[in-house]
Amino acid sequence: MSRTRILSLPSIATSARLFSVSARIQANRAIVYSHNGQPADVVRALTIPNLTPPPPQTVNLRFVLSPINPADVNVIEGVYPSKPQPSSFPGVQGSVFVGGNEGLGEVTGVGEGVRSLKRGDWVVMKTSQLGTWRSAANVPEEQLLKVPRLEGLSEVNAATMMVNPATAYCLLSDFVALKRGHWVVQNGANSAVGQAVIQLARNAGLKTINFVRSRDDIDVLRQELQDLGATHVLTYDELDDKKAVKAKVKEWTNGQDILLGLNCVGGESTMAMAGLLGSNAHLVTYGAMAKRPVPIPASFYIFKNLTSHGFWLSRWYNENGERKIKLVEKLARIMASGKFKEPKHEIVTIEKEASEEQASSTISEVFRRIALGSLRKKVILNVKGDDK
Amino acid sequence: MSRTRILSLPSIATSARLFSVSARIQANRAIVYSHNGQPADVVRALTIPNLTPPPPQTVNLRFVLSPINPADVNVIEGVYPSKPQPSSFPGVQGSVFVGGNEGLGEVTGVGEGVRSLKRGDWVVMKTSQLGTWRSAANVPEEQLLKVPRLEGLSEVNAATMMVNPATAYCLLSDFVALKRGHWVVQNGANSAVGQAVIQLARNAGLKTINFVRSRDDIDVLRQELQDLGATHVLTYDELDDKKAVKAKVKEWTNGQDILLGLNCVGGESTMAMAGLLGSNAHLVTYGAMAKRPVPIPASFYIFKNLTSHGFWLSRWYNENGERKIKLVEKLARIMASGKFKEPKHEIVTIEKEASEEQASSTISEVFRRIALGSLRKKVILNVKGDDK
Repeated sequence: MSRTRILSLPSIATSARLFSVSARIQANRAIVYSHNGQPADVVRALTIPNLTPPPPQTVNLRFVLSPINPADVNVIEGVYPSKPQPSSFPGVQGSVFVGGNEGLGEVTGVGEGVRSLKRGDWVVMKTSQLGTWRSAANVPEEQLLKVPRLEGLSEVNAATMMVNPATAYCLLSDFVALKRGHWVVQNGANSAVGQAVIQLARNAGLKTINFVRSRDDIDVLRQELQDLGATHVLTYDELDDKKAVKAKVKEWTNGQDILLGLNCVGGESTMAMAGLLGSNAHLVTYGAMAKRPVPIPASFYIFKNLTSHGFWLSRWYNENGERKIKLVEKLARIMASGKFKEPKHEIVTIEKEASEEQASSTISEVFRRIALGSLRKKVILNVKGDDK
Repeated sequence: MSRTRILSLPSIATSARLFSVSARIQANRAIVYSHNGQPADVVRALTIPNLTPPPPQTVNLRFVLSPINPADVNVIEGVYPSKPQPSSFPGVQGSVFVGGNEGLGEVTGVGEGVRSLKRGDWVVMKTSQLGTWRSAANVPEEQLLKVPRLEGLSEVNAATMMVNPATAYCLLSDFVALKRGHWVVQNGANSAVGQAVIQLARNAGLKTINFVRSRDDIDVLRQELQDLGATHVLTYDELDDKKAVKAKVKEWTNGQDILLGLNCVGGESTMAMAGLLGSNAHLVTYGAMAKRPVPIPASFYIFKNLTSHGFWLSRWYNENGERKIKLVEKLARIMASGKFKEPKHEIVTIEKEASEEQASSTISEVFRRIALGSLRKKVILNVKGDDK
């Protein structure tokens, strides 16, 4: 217990003796948890040692921005199939899990034998569940992907490209060979992935039919999505009248078969949406907001030759080594061109001057707000520390 | 009206003058319908002219045996996507549809330029919905596939190979590269396709887990399916206790991932069956006995990388020209080897001496019994006529 306490920033003079030989007092910070549970209850800020010079084949990073994604919450709850490795820190008793899967890092030091990276380079994580919610980290070169620091590529876009836009990119490119003028139908169109689909589709010359939940300000939302590039925006309620919606879609597409459907919802409305697909189409499920199965009539499979797939970015990353590099370059270019809007977000900064109690309280509050479900924007952490 | 009546066999002397120059009085018969409806109501026996010598590139056939398959009923009801072409017969007013999609024919005459067939050859239909419920027909060579007349290949097996065993063969070979010792799970295991799957799987060294509805004589059915080669037989009820059935299956498979699931049922039990599949498995839907959608949890798609397909034999036949020939040869060899049991069946003969009224009444009665759903065996027509 005393060892933990001496790591907190207020008792900096003591901790400096333990883990730093530098005359200057230094410390980093990570957002960690020791056991699974509701993030607001189990996540805390932990002061950790400063980085030593990077060993061979590794680099030191400062984290510029580290998003909190919905899957991160599931990981902390222990209900996600991907599990992070525990981390141990000098001077910290036991091991902990550092939260966060996505983040933008800047290289601050380069170990012997590192060839692809130099000081000042931007990187994103090649390996999943590395624990990105921290001020700084030492990471093997092979677990990182260089992001070209293009004029016009914002920190927020770079920090958030590898989950939602990457998912959208793979959904649009991995299942059907779509060409300019082809149509795509999706539900959950207002989700982070949905909005990325709209923008990447528009940039590729594809047309989108987008389903969202009905709400009081539906016209505002419709306008927002159309501003992103949505060709048409409909509510799930409009799927109730199957004939009417089919006639509408047929008119829009001029009878062209829709070959790709993207589903992150599930339940009856997904079945109705699948009914808008043409022959030989592909339905790709990548989420389950309605927490209900995807019910598809046998006739869609048998007579319309529908194929139903799943997409999981973690698996894609594990199976597509070389393609990841191209994916980062492609997304960076699109974002730098100004044709990809940053996600709605709020940056929460964990100041290095804050005590562990204060910082832990801030982060718990963030997770309480996320759990309420009313935030409607992405929280991006900026964790400060002496190496940053 | 009078023209129809003169075609009936009782008034044979008149009809002979109309459509035959032969001194011997000849006529054939077909099972036809003029409009869609319940088969028992709309199907009738029609006397049709004898065959003329075959024009170039065609052959004359006598039909040996012509099965009634469930899809034939749907075609007559007008609810099946494949529609037959109407047929006109000399001396018969208007056009009619000849029922039947599957059948075994024997070549009785060969037109000029026919290379692949000779008198006495056995053939099955290469083209769907040709109208096989008749005593004889003239058919273009290109619409037929030669069946090797192997020692041990029975007429019943040859006549019924192109729908159910062919479906089973494609289900087992077209979606996953299965090897000896691999496992397959299927529902509707007591259906004609299900029984063919069991036998073809056993012949290929595959193991099967087979689901059937519970019934009073379940032990008899279990034994029957095991006699065909089923490795294990379970009832849908046993899927209710997911943990127990998963543990059982894990023990049987020794933890090996099951990569192929075959579904002709739908509904909740299909979802539970899909839960027995391993990672990267394929679920193929080829029927919908429960008349309910196939509900699959998003997690199966996303995290287990399940792919859900449909299989429709008509499409397969349209898209697989050359492979059809190999399929017939393969099935004929397996059947001739004695390792494929004939389906349970009843042969209904329409005698040529029967009047149109008598023959129509016989065929209506057959469809009434089929509609009751308690037949539990395949009805195979043997339609007699003068060309047969």
